[in-house]
Amino acid sequence: MIENSGRPRAVDALVFDAYGTLFDVQSVASTAEALFPGRGAALAQLWRSKQLEYSWLQSLMQSPGQPREDFAAVTAHALSYAAEALALPLPAHARHRLLDAYLHLSPFPDAEPTLAALAPRRRLILSNGTHAMLAPLAAATGLARHFDAILSADDAGVYKPSPRVYQLAVDALDCPPIRIGFVSSNSWDAIGAKAFGFTVFWINRSGAPIDRHGPAPDCMIRSLADLPALLTAA
Amino acid sequence: MIENSGRPRAVDALVFDAYGTLFDVQSVASTAEALFPGRGAALAQLWRSKQLEYSWLQSLMQSPGQPREDFAAVTAHALSYAAEALALPLPAHARHRLLDAYLHLSPFPDAEPTLAALAPRRRLILSNGTHAMLAPLAAATGLARHFDAILSADDAGVYKPSPRVYQLAVDALDCPPIRIGFVSSNSWDAIGAKAFGFTVFWINRSGAPIDRHGPAPDCMIRSLADLPALLTAA
Repeated sequence: MIENSGRPRAVDALVFDAYGTLFDVQSVASTAEALFPGRGAALAQLWRSKQLEYSWLQSLMQSPGQPREDFAAVTAHALSYAAEALALPLPAHARHRLLDAYLHLSPFPDAEPTLAALAPRRRLILSNGTHAMLAPLAAATGLARHFDAILSADDAGVYKPSPRVYQLAVDALDCPPIRIGFVSSNSWDAIGAKAFGFTVFWINRSGAPIDRHGPAPDCMIRSLADLPALLTAA
Repeated sequence: MIENSGRPRAVDALVFDAYGTLFDVQSVASTAEALFPGRGAALAQLWRSKQLEYSWLQSLMQSPGQPREDFAAVTAHALSYAAEALALPLPAHARHRLLDAYLHLSPFPDAEPTLAALAPRRRLILSNGTHAMLAPLAAATGLARHFDAILSADDAGVYKPSPRVYQLAVDALDCPPIRIGFVSSNSWDAIGAKAFGFTVFWINRSGAPIDRHGPAPDCMIRSLADLPALLTAA
């Protein structure tokens, strides 16, 4: 049972997922629609779905001699598959525009005021993205000044929801997992973080059902703006 | 580049995936359609997709104190999610009929003659399913007599495409991976098996594009019946 509001939680720091949580990936779908009128939503959806699938599969397939590829490579492979599966021709310029869209996302409108309201607690980003994808995005959107650090799954050599990725935040914050508030719009990420031991806030903007493969997040909220009221005084 | 026919391969033994490779899961969709007219295909598709996703996520989320659930449990959780996501009411009898359908699948028509033609080579099943799901299915369909052993991912405590699962077949056969022909209709499984080092035959019945997150299988064929001609004399 997930509490929709419930008692305030005592956390010392907050860790945010990036794609879909702080940054709106809708502009990727808009770029896809501009390139392939009437098929943009299908392309963006299959691309995203394969991007996640490939990140999990590469993590599981790892063996000592076969490290995983980084998220930029996984994202490019997933786009190739999605375009072929939907029989959409993907010349170099279209491919470049679509991949480039991931580097120029907009933050959700409530991201900046929420981050500001959460100070003086420490705030981190923990994402599957590479540092080369995340740092320019955080800088260009102005969100970078609200963060103490940006952590990439690359630092653990595996993707979320591996506990080795969540451990990066514990090591960076030197704080027990239960005192860390983890915030993600991705149900599988929220569940992985809860299994790890964080206090988890699932941002469920679309009213989706919760996944069933692990422990439910502590709180479900509809937007980032609902977050500060759920925390005890810093 | 995958060879569609190509030179014959020298393998000493063959390892088969079960669901979708030897056994047709179409009857699950038929049961779903009988229960929910017009929505059966959508339910079966989302259920299967979540079944795979949950198996990968549970494998990745594992930590010493948190073992994964078995495939029967994962399959049941995935059904609960799929029914809720599609707003389909799932009373106990309907739930039972759907889960039961997985225990009463039919083999593809070419499964038995192909298995017979591959003798005297050793033949195994290596599946994510539990022994309790696989053994009665192999017995009831008459395929059991063609197999030297049925291996379950449970024996490795993780799901495919973890190399620890594929290693079960190497240990059982005491044979180098390259001399083992691995046969799967699941693109992600074929790629995982190829990354592990098997000689891989991808059964691509629907003409799907190949996934892009790892090395391509050695051969792509349209049906099990194409397999014996691709092997050198036993």
